[in-house]
Parts: sequence; C-alpha cells; structure tokens
Amino acid sequence: MGRVTERRRVVRIRGGQVAERSDTLAGEEPMEIRVGGHALAITMRTPGDDFALAAGFLVSEGVVHSADEVARVVYCAGAEDDGAGGRSANSYNVVDVVLADGVPPPAPSVARNVYVSSSCGMCGRTSIDAVRTTARRALSAGPRLTPELLSLLPERLRAGQKVFDRTGGLHAAALFAADGTLLDLREDVGRHNAVDKVVGRALLDGSLPLDDTVLMVSGRASFELVQKAVMAGIPVLAAVSAPSSLAVDLAEESGVTLVGFLRGDSMNVYAGAQRVVLPADS
Amino acid sequence: MGRVTERRRVVRIRGGQVAERSDTLAGEEPMEIRVGGHALAITMRTPGDDFALAAGFLVSEGVVHSADEVARVVYCAGAEDDGAGGRSANSYNVVDVVLADGVPPPAPSVARNVYVSSSCGMCGRTSIDAVRTTARRALSAGPRLTPELLSLLPERLRAGQKVFDRTGGLHAAALFAADGTLLDLREDVGRHNAVDKVVGRALLDGSLPLDDTVLMVSGRASFELVQKAVMAGIPVLAAVSAPSSLAVDLAEESGVTLVGFLRGDSMNVYAGAQRVVLPADS
Repeated sequence: MGRVTERRRVVRIRGGQVAERSDTLAGEEPMEIRVGGHALAITMRTPGDDFALAAGFLVSEGVVHSADEVARVVYCAGAEDDGAGGRSANSYNVVDVVLADGVPPPAPSVARNVYVSSSCGMCGRTSIDAVRTTARRALSAGPRLTPELLSLLPERLRAGQKVFDRTGGLHAAALFAADGTLLDLREDVGRHNAVDKVVGRALLDGSLPLDDTVLMVSGRASFELVQKAVMAGIPVLAAVSAPSSLAVDLAEESGVTLVGFLRGDSMNVYAGAQRVVLPADS
Repeated sequence: MGRVTERRRVVRIRGGQVAERSDTLAGEEPMEIRVGGHALAITMRTPGDDFALAAGFLVSEGVVHSADEVARVVYCAGAEDDGAGGRSANSYNVVDVVLADGVPPPAPSVARNVYVSSSCGMCGRTSIDAVRTTARRALSAGPRLTPELLSLLPERLRAGQKVFDRTGGLHAAALFAADGTLLDLREDVGRHNAVDKVVGRALLDGSLPLDDTVLMVSGRASFELVQKAVMAGIPVLAAVSAPSSLAVDLAEESGVTLVGFLRGDSMNVYAGAQRVVLPADS
C-alpha cells in the first residue's frame, strides 16, 4: 500500500555547504475511483483515507448525499496489474464504491474516465454550464461566528498538520464546530482531495449535511472548493489565502459565507457576512 | 472578455476594526479548448494569454511539438451561448487551435471533453498507466548551474509577479536562461495553467524545445509539473516549496533536474544533480 510519506535521497545545499541526506516527501500516487465496478475517475492523491476520499468525491459530484446511499466501499483486490511494475496500479490504488439498492448510478456527464491531477477536484464536466453542480437543499442559516472565534482557527488547523510538519508539502482541510472545536482534519497533496476526505469521512459517519460547521483550508479558495462546501452542506468556508473572483461569485449565489486571508485577528469576509458577528452588531 | 483581476466588495476585519471596502481578486473563468472545432477540455483559468494557454496545453498533452504544427489559434466568435447569462460562455472563453495540414488530431485518450479545475493540468487520461505522456526526444545535457545562480531565481520570480502583488492569489511560472536571465513569466489561479502559458508562448514563438532553460514555479512541484517540463524539453525544474514523491520519481526517470525548497542560498536537489555545480566539483 502506498504511504503517506516516502523517503528519498536528496542533495541539500545550505549557504555553500553540501550534504547528501534522506528527506521525507509527501506521498503522491494515482487512485482510481469506481462506482459499482465502473471506473469513474483517477485522482493523484496522498495515500490514506482512501475510502473517505472516494465517498467525498461522490458527494462533490452529487452522486451520494447520505451514508445509507452507500452499501460498501472496498479496495479492488483483483484489480488488474498495468504491467508496468504494478506500483501505480496495485489493488490499494483502486477503490470501488457500491451504491445501495435504488440509488441511481452517476449521470453520464459524471460517468466518464477522467484523470484528476493532485490539485484538481472537478474533472469530468462536459460543458461550461455543467461546471455548477446542484445541491439538493439550502444551507443552514447558522452558525453565527465572532471574529475572535474565527481568528483561533488558523492556529488549530496548523497544529493539526502532522504530515506537513514532516514534509512541508501538503494541503490541509479542517472541519470545525460552531464553537471552534476541531471535528476532523485531513491532509493531501491535492487541496480538493483534503476536502473530499473530510466530507467523505462525514458521509460515512452519517453526519451529512454538515450544518453549522466551518471548513478551513490551508491555501487559497477556488471555485471548486466553494462548490464542494455547498454539496456537503457546509455553510462557512475559511481560507488562509485569497479567493478567486468566481469563488466569491459562487459563494454569493449559493449562500456560503466565504472568509479569506484569515490570519491572526485579520480577515476578509467576501460573501455571507450575515454569519459573522461584526462589532457593530454586538 | 474576462479580466485578469476583478473588484469585489469585502468586509475587512483588522483587530476588531471593521471596514467595508473594495478588494482586488484574481480572475477565474472557465475556458474551453478546442482542436479543429472539437471540444477537448475546459480549464478554470485566469483570463489572459489564452492562446498561449491553449497551445501549451496541447504541448503537455503531446498533441503538438513545434510552431509549424499549429496553423492558427482563434477565439470562437460564434461560440454558442449557454443560455445562462453568457458570461461563462462568451466567445472569449472558447479558443480553437487549428492544426497544420498533416498533423494528427489528439488521440482518443486525450480527445474527450474534460473539465479542468483551476489547479488541474492533466485531466483526460483513461487509465493509471496513461498518466505518463511520452516525450519525443531526450532532454539537453545542460545547463550547468551554480547554487549561487539558482539562489537568485526566487527573487526574480517574485519581482515579476505583478498580479500577485495586487491579489495575493496567483501562482506563477517563470522561464530562465542558463545565465539566470528571465525569459518569460506568467501568472494564473492554476499552477499548471501558468506553466502551460509559458510553454505555449514558447511554442508559438518557435522556441520549443526549451533546451538549457530553467522553469521556476511559485509553489510545490507535483507530478504533473515535472511531466509538463519533460514535454516542453525543459531540463531543470525549480520550486519554492516541496516536491511530491512521484514528482521526484518521474524527474529521475526522465532526466529532469528537480530542485525544491529553493529559498535564498538554501535548496534541495532531488534528482538530476549532475546539472548543479556543487562546491566539491569546483
């Protein structure tokens, strides 16, 4: 099975000093996601939490919405070798999600073999207007968060990034309760994978939709991350760095509270400011 | 036409002080890439350098290798509206690359409608072993770079990031000559797009393959970025942050020099150290 981290020899240069040493790198391997035996996507991911990743990907794509729609998630022990050494096609790199009876399989627009790079979360759409996936229900009206509470989240996210500490090379996504309690944190070379892992874990635990929670990501907030929040029912998305224009537009359209540049007691609220308790309110 | 940056109203909170102001965001819009009129991919990109992006994407996918294989690149003025307002499907968001006579169209494994998120550069592959695209020729033996020269590149990259200065929300890719001269720099919400824009510009200028050059990226080095370097003939890839394990493996296999954590006079050489002049050599 692939590893979360891998060791490689590296020539390290520091101010004219050269040393050869072993370095810890974030693991990256392709994983094929199947639904009922049919290949749906290949994603470049950091091994680990593979079942959650597969389940979360299906939430983001609108295929499943609750735990009872998933019969089981399994590694394909009999997945065929690719003849190229097998490392990239071993049975731990192919995950099959079996849907419960009566749950319709992915729509043709989703059900295509797609390659998803380590930073891509929404491959498989066939036209520009298909970029937007449709959520089934509205987001929760809450939570109501103070800036003081929001300002605590970056440090709690950072403190939980165990693999980043060793490699400096991973994105993280953390789910918080409305009181700032850390509910879950996942890391991956792909930002979208880290979010899918959080969402998929919640799905498998039966806690979707994630009303009254806050999703915090270690990097920027792109369109696809807002989309994933919407599909999981997460009403607040906070990011350490900048959002894109389309991320702000989608957040406004879909009622997501979008906080960017959340660093210490400083932050920008780009959409959904009604969930933030501003000093003028209090 | 979409803009490189866009303005949005934002609620800015700084240490308890709240102010509403206008903020500059990195633009993000979908762009459809067609080849000879047939849709090939949709990518989430920052508008600008669209022809270079389309051309570079085709280099990365192994469809074109030199300027004479491209007859012309055009916006599809007659691209149909999607009926959803048109903003995301206007004619400046659809680019058609017309191949020269005799150049074969994309292989079926590439020629599928794929949605490429703002951070995905290699969608459309149908199996794990198809993840690797094959380059036609070997990389140049050179250049030979000193650590002193490499240590100058991050600051030169940073100095050229004009849109990042305004938004804090863009990746950058810069191409350097072997003497450290900046040859080109492109920015995008998608790391892979920034690289495709650099490569595509070089293709359209007739300067592919990019022997004896150095590609520097503002973030991490993933598998797909090494792949793009290989396809463009770029022998050295340097990154501000960490590489993934698979990026190192592909760099070793394909002879790319991979430098990570390039910050000041500090760096790690993960593969292809023969192109770095180490103190012991001198």
